[in-house]
Amino acid sequence: MDLLKQRILNDGEALNENVLKVDSFLNHQIDPLLMKEVGQEFIHRFEDVEFNKVLTLESSGIAPSVMVGLLLDIPVVFGRKRQSLTLSDDLYTSQVFSYTKQETNTIAVAKKFLSKDDKVLIIDDFLANGEAAGALIDVVEQSGAEIVGVGIVIEKAFQSGGKILRDKGYRVESLARIESMYDKQVKFVGDN
Amino acid sequence: MDLLKQRILNDGEALNENVLKVDSFLNHQIDPLLMKEVGQEFIHRFEDVEFNKVLTLESSGIAPSVMVGLLLDIPVVFGRKRQSLTLSDDLYTSQVFSYTKQETNTIAVAKKFLSKDDKVLIIDDFLANGEAAGALIDVVEQSGAEIVGVGIVIEKAFQSGGKILRDKGYRVESLARIESMYDKQVKFVGDN
Repeated sequence: MDLLKQRILNDGEALNENVLKVDSFLNHQIDPLLMKEVGQEFIHRFEDVEFNKVLTLESSGIAPSVMVGLLLDIPVVFGRKRQSLTLSDDLYTSQVFSYTKQETNTIAVAKKFLSKDDKVLIIDDFLANGEAAGALIDVVEQSGAEIVGVGIVIEKAFQSGGKILRDKGYRVESLARIESMYDKQVKFVGDN
Repeated sequence: MDLLKQRILNDGEALNENVLKVDSFLNHQIDPLLMKEVGQEFIHRFEDVEFNKVLTLESSGIAPSVMVGLLLDIPVVFGRKRQSLTLSDDLYTSQVFSYTKQETNTIAVAKKFLSKDDKVLIIDDFLANGEAAGALIDVVEQSGAEIVGVGIVIEKAFQSGGKILRDKGYRVESLARIESMYDKQVKFVGDN
C-alpha cells in the first residue's frame, strides 16, 4: 500500500533498529482519511472471505477497524487491555507480554460479543513478536468463532510474529512490511 | 439525537441510578454507522465555529472523534491515559480521578500535536462529573490553543460535570442528556 509506505517514510521515526514511532498518523494523532484508505485496503485484501465482525485491541487498532466496520456496516469489538483484572465469568481473557513496556497485560472481551456463529477479522496496528495478535486469536478461539484472517497495518517483518502466525496457518495481510530499520532508515520488504 | 436516544433505550443498561452500560455500541462493541451519525450531529451542532483538530481520550472517544475527523478531513488526537507516567518535557499532562474505578490517572498529549494556532473541538463519550473533559481542557489550555467547544455523546445531566463546564463558559453540546435512571429506567432531559 504505497500511500501508507510513503507516509511511514515521510512522518514515521525509526528511533532505533526496533522501534518505529508513527504517532503523527496512527498511534496518538490519527489521520482519518489515511485510516479510511487503510480500511479499504483491508477490505480489498480479504474480499474473498466473508466476515461479520472485526476484533481489535484498544487503542490504536480502533481507528482502522472502525473504517472497515463503517464501509461494510458490521460491528467492531475492541479488546480491553488491563494490568489487573477482576476475574469474571462474562469475559474471555488472554495474556499479552509487551516487550516495549516490559509488562504483562490481560486483554478481555465480553463473551456476549463473540459467539461460535461469528466470522471474525482481527485487525491491529502493529505486528512485531505476535503477542497481541496471538492473544486476540486466543480469545476468538475460546469463543468458538471462526478467524478469517489477521489484518495488520504495519508488520515488523524482521521480528518473529508474522512467521509464527503464518506457520500456524493463519492468513496474515500486512499493509506495510518493514524489512529493517538500520541507521534509522526504514526499508520495506521487496524494496531494493 | 433521536437515533442515539432510541439506541440507549433499546440496548443500554442502567445498572443502577448512576451507571449506564452502553458496551454494545460505544464502549466495547462499536456500531460504526451510529458513530458516523454521531459524528455528523457533532458537525451540525458546531457548524458555526471553525476548528482544525479534534481532541479526545482513549479508548471510547476515538470512534466518534474519527468520524468527525473523516467527514471534515482534520486530524484527531487522542490523549493517552496512564496510571503512572515517566515525566517528559514533550508532554502536556493532567490528572483525572475516575469515580467508577476509584483511581487517579494521568492523561498525556504530546506537545507537538497541540499549538497555540490550533482551534480544538474536544469530544468524549461520557460526561458525568467532568473529570475527563476537565483534564482535556487543561491540556489544551496549557498549549495555548483555542477550545471551540466540548462535544459529548452521553451526558449524565444529574451529575455536576455539565454545569461545571458551562458555568466556566465552555460550550458543551451533548447528544443525549440523561435526567435520571431511577428503577433502571433511563429518562432523558425534556422527556415527560
